[in-house]
Amino acid sequence: MVIVMNIDASEKQISEITNLLTSLGLGYHISRGEEKIVIGVIGDKRKLDGKAIEMMEGVEKVIPIVDPYKLASRIFKPEPTIVKVGDIEIGGKNIVIMAGPCAVESREQLFESAMAVKRAGAHFLRGGAYKPRTSPYSFQGLEEEGLKMLSEARELTGLKIVTEVMDVHSVEKVAEYADVLQIGARNMQNFSLLKAVGRMNKPVLLKRGLAATLEEWLSAAEYILNEGNKDVILCERGIRTFETYTRNTLDLSAVPAIKKLSHLPIIVDPSHGTGRWHLVPSMAKAAVAAGADGLIIEVHPDPKNALSDGPQSLTPDNFESLVKELKIIAEAVGRELA
Amino acid sequence: MVIVMNIDASEKQISEITNLLTSLGLGYHISRGEEKIVIGVIGDKRKLDGKAIEMMEGVEKVIPIVDPYKLASRIFKPEPTIVKVGDIEIGGKNIVIMAGPCAVESREQLFESAMAVKRAGAHFLRGGAYKPRTSPYSFQGLEEEGLKMLSEARELTGLKIVTEVMDVHSVEKVAEYADVLQIGARNMQNFSLLKAVGRMNKPVLLKRGLAATLEEWLSAAEYILNEGNKDVILCERGIRTFETYTRNTLDLSAVPAIKKLSHLPIIVDPSHGTGRWHLVPSMAKAAVAAGADGLIIEVHPDPKNALSDGPQSLTPDNFESLVKELKIIAEAVGRELA
Amino acid sequence: MVIVMNIDASEKQISEITNLLTSLGLGYHISRGEEKIVIGVIGDKRKLDGKAIEMMEGVEKVIPIVDPYKLASRIFKPEPTIVKVGDIEIGGKNIVIMAGPCAVESREQLFESAMAVKRAGAHFLRGGAYKPRTSPYSFQGLEEEGLKMLSEARELTGLKIVTEVMDVHSVEKVAEYADVLQIGARNMQNFSLLKAVGRMNKPVLLKRGLAATLEEWLSAAEYILNEGNKDVILCERGIRTFETYTRNTLDLSAVPAIKKLSHLPIIVDPSHGTGRWHLVPSMAKAAVAAGADGLIIEVHPDPKNALSDGPQSLTPDNFESLVKELKIIAEAVGRELA
Amino acid sequence: MVIVMNIDASEKQISEITNLLTSLGLGYHISRGEEKIVIGVIGDKRKLDGKAIEMMEGVEKVIPIVDPYKLASRIFKPEPTIVKVGDIEIGGKNIVIMAGPCAVESREQLFESAMAVKRAGAHFLRGGAYKPRTSPYSFQGLEEEGLKMLSEARELTGLKIVTEVMDVHSVEKVAEYADVLQIGARNMQNFSLLKAVGRMNKPVLLKRGLAATLEEWLSAAEYILNEGNKDVILCERGIRTFETYTRNTLDLSAVPAIKKLSHLPIIVDPSHGTGRWHLVPSMAKAAVAAGADGLIIEVHPDPKNALSDGPQSLTPDNFESLVKELKIIAEAVGRELA
Repeated sequence: MVIVMNIDASEKQISEITNLLTSLGLGYHISRGEEKIVIGVIGDKRKLDGKAIEMMEGVEKVIPIVDPYKLASRIFKPEPTIVKVGDIEIGGKNIVIMAGPCAVESREQLFESAMAVKRAGAHFLRGGAYKPRTSPYSFQGLEEEGLKMLSEARELTGLKIVTEVMDVHSVEKVAEYADVLQIGARNMQNFSLLKAVGRMNKPVLLKRGLAATLEEWLSAAEYILNEGNKDVILCERGIRTFETYTRNTLDLSAVPAIKKLSHLPIIVDPSHGTGRWHLVPSMAKAAVAAGADGLIIEVHPDPKNALSDGPQSLTPDNFESLVKELKIIAEAVGRELA
Repeated sequence: MVIVMNIDASEKQISEITNLLTSLGLGYHISRGEEKIVIGVIGDKRKLDGKAIEMMEGVEKVIPIVDPYKLASRIFKPEPTIVKVGDIEIGGKNIVIMAGPCAVESREQLFESAMAVKRAGAHFLRGGAYKPRTSPYSFQGLEEEGLKMLSEARELTGLKIVTEVMDVHSVEKVAEYADVLQIGARNMQNFSLLKAVGRMNKPVLLKRGLAATLEEWLSAAEYILNEGNKDVILCERGIRTFETYTRNTLDLSAVPAIKKLSHLPIIVDPSHGTGRWHLVPSMAKAAVAAGADGLIIEVHPDPKNALSDGPQSLTPDNFESLVKELKIIAEAVGRELA
Repeated sequence: MVIVMNIDASEKQISEITNLLTSLGLGYHISRGEEKIVIGVIGDKRKLDGKAIEMMEGVEKVIPIVDPYKLASRIFKPEPTIVKVGDIEIGGKNIVIMAGPCAVESREQLFESAMAVKRAGAHFLRGGAYKPRTSPYSFQGLEEEGLKMLSEARELTGLKIVTEVMDVHSVEKVAEYADVLQIGARNMQNFSLLKAVGRMNKPVLLKRGLAATLEEWLSAAEYILNEGNKDVILCERGIRTFETYTRNTLDLSAVPAIKKLSHLPIIVDPSHGTGRWHLVPSMAKAAVAAGADGLIIEVHPDPKNALSDGPQSLTPDNFESLVKELKIIAEAVGRELA
Repeated sequence: MVIVMNIDASEKQISEITNLLTSLGLGYHISRGEEKIVIGVIGDKRKLDGKAIEMMEGVEKVIPIVDPYKLASRIFKPEPTIVKVGDIEIGGKNIVIMAGPCAVESREQLFESAMAVKRAGAHFLRGGAYKPRTSPYSFQGLEEEGLKMLSEARELTGLKIVTEVMDVHSVEKVAEYADVLQIGARNMQNFSLLKAVGRMNKPVLLKRGLAATLEEWLSAAEYILNEGNKDVILCERGIRTFETYTRNTLDLSAVPAIKKLSHLPIIVDPSHGTGRWHLVPSMAKAAVAAGADGLIIEVHPDPKNALSDGPQSLTPDNFESLVKELKIIAEAVGRELA
């Protein structure tokens, strides 16, 4: 921690701070510049938790130096984490594809989607049984019924299942059926839910919040890791900006940035990231080129009649063509898509 | 709903849309301009739920006309809602002041704060027993112990209690102790939690999400209203922008905008809205001048030693001076602060 | 400047940095924490201009301590600057009101506006002769003809004139007619233009850029001050966020923040800041309560027929009522509106 | 244009609008829904310029249907524009690479950079002679001296030259030396400058503004096209968001979106887009995978000693490796990099 004071801070103001530091067993060093006085603090900064040094007289600002997360950090664990779901590895050489409808709507719709995405080369089936919707009057999902259908679709196709869990009440139920528990963007800082999935023995797909910084996102992952669950997969899904043509602004620079800051695998959701199906193939290819470990893509057998998010869903045919293109890009960056 | 098509859309493409509308029992009218063809849809737009008209050939965009919320809307209920908490009215002529520490830290800290804010003229004591914190290593709150202290502080001072509820598990417990249930910004779209507090018989203070539009905020209120709880108080607490000098950007234009769009009362949180105590008095006065129905302000007997959010807390003395100034502003805009 | 290195940086990496500092005549101090190594640099940081220390091995980040502006800073000049335009003072006890149409459209429209705002109590007439418009097909202004009309309106009413200058070519011409030169939001970082108005002997009204931080805004003011023109008035006019109900998000916290960071006067433009005339009165009152030194408000004798920005213009009657309310607020915060 | 009215609008309010439309020679159609009344306007909407229908009684909002740009639109000109600079085509099958230092600092630095990027396979040399800098105390460029050096570097290497023009005064001078005139992000809405380069006979590289929507960006291009200059190249360079780890957020979805909305070629600047050299290679590859027509990348022979933007510059070696990787990606998406 670095404390910046105005050059005209009095000796009394400075010694009030240094006395506080000393009383807490912390060391310090004072640099007097031409415009500012800088006090570098040495020792365990946790001793300063809750000391509002910004409010002490003469202090201009306090700059934290240490990251708020530790277990999620690449410095803490330099080698990349590979999350295993059965025989599938996320974060290894292979690019993992998760695909399926936004919401589970019916057995027929789900099975048709599942078989189509399986045929095209997907590894996971996605589909929401519990749906977080902006309006209470929109379709809210089939709930446990939907979970059962997902489980049947797994039997049918061998695909792994990733599906969202929306609250602490339903964590155990969703975990009964799913292979990977998804935390949605709107729940990225639902800390009770993060702790609850952190206590489960299932991998967690943690979507980035609509207005979350990388630091907040990794701190959210830290909540899960800190409860003992080491299998966290990050998912970039677009952030909110002033641009209105796209539903969100897909921040692909998050991919190489997370690779530098953390050891956790990261996948990309170009469907929510853009909100327009015709932008999805370009952004899916860009994500793989940027170094993503996988993709999660909305595919619906009949997007025009989807109960949720139709405009951003690919048809099975579009999806099949895309997977072929993705294989070529994967190889071009030294990865595989098997 | 208005459907915009390219001027070069074929008759077949147009008739595919009009056939769909007719089959759903919806009327329509076609306007052919020089650059666009516009189809106005007449009838209950819910019949179009899940029809992704954006994906139909020739369609450029679909523009919704009707708001996604209804019970929260001023058109639905033109007269303003006044939420009553005992003998205190929120949304009436009187400006309501809620004040207290960010977190309940100890009986001593809480009681000292409570007596100070009571003396200065506050109507409510605020204080978190459950704290949503970015990092799992930060102070997480005293939980039920904290709730009990809040309840004791109410006995002591007669102040009403507003405190945050973080998950569906603890709604009933928090409701036992609190007079008003607070939903934090990070949970504004935790729809399970919104439904849960919507089923309680307690007023709800709904903070605006960090990146929530007014439409999404009112739709979140709709979740609560739709479960039968009519007592929703909105709270503007700053949105996330590129500016870094302030912790958030306090959007005071939300006050007159909400007054126009909705009948619900709205208060302002200048402490989280700015993150800097020295900006709080100016923004508190501005909020009242803009038409806010109340304020929620962090006050700590010893901000330098607060376990949470010290830099944005006022001292009891600062707070007392501020309340005096607020009375003058309230009168200047035809309100009262009693 | 503070240099943060990873805890596993080698001694060689550290000495490469300290050798560089020494070679430039700079002092330093090294603090070795548990997770980071921090090097505080002592001396004139300008010696490090263009040394990309971030790129040196082992360096994680470089944190600047000193602000990029100096003449605009409150530390450099603690007493507030009062800009005098004839007998009118901006930044003193009196709240200054600038009002008039967005664009000068005709002699009749301008004179009618001028007389109306004069009667209501305005000190300045605003009105664009050169208009920056998003589309080349929108009305671009009457240019010199418009300047002449503004000058005639001054004769007629005694109001001072503030009008926008859009490029380096027309600075001298605009200065012939105007009392205050306005730099628009889109030109806030048109550095050639800033230097050009900095060489004039006329006060400058510098609007905040649509996505400008306070630091960038004050640095833009620094360009003007640095050329010798000390009379800079800042104008907050809303920043761009994800919210779409308002045209911009008016950042009133900029008012007390600028008052802390700088000695320059600051006024507020609630018309562009909201884009909706029915929000203007509330935000104008809030601005004065927040401590603004003045307001610039669009008033049009017939807003429905304005050639530009009608929806955000007040009628003369609305404006007159507003000025009366503003007087009361001004007094409530210890100011005057004469 | 679509006019939305409240369901409780009176017949008088409706007829005031329809009378206005009729008086202007415009047709209309009224749809009465359950919650709103919608008036679709038929005819040349320019007749409504400056009629603030939003302000008429009973009107809730006015929704424009037609885009503000025309010459830049894909509907106006369906086939892609290929900008030719000598024998180089931008917007064709070949991916074009522009590279070089942020600023021209010296003959030696420039020539070394030029030879290195030429050797690695670049087609253009970039380098600023006039530098827009946030602070007036930062290096402002070598001006005409720098232009001469760029011209010499062209002689030496055969590379084309792209360099920034900052104001209307220097357009002719820069055009004497440069092959492509660059308009920087901060000048994207400097309309005087856009008109000035629109009258030149040189291609223009138009960078996206820091907070510009796609619509505003294409409208800025329209200013240039409307003056007669058809050779506009768009350049995505990152937008401003709340994220602070990266200098900007590179919006790669702009690439396929622009391809859909416009016929103009688009290139990407991953150096300014991220502000961190170690993110540049990933984002450069992603840009090509997303469909960009080219890249503009900062390369400096000695980034640690660059006078501007060192932290985002690649070394010649890094750049050479990157170009090799880009060739593979280009082929993977059916393009070439020759």
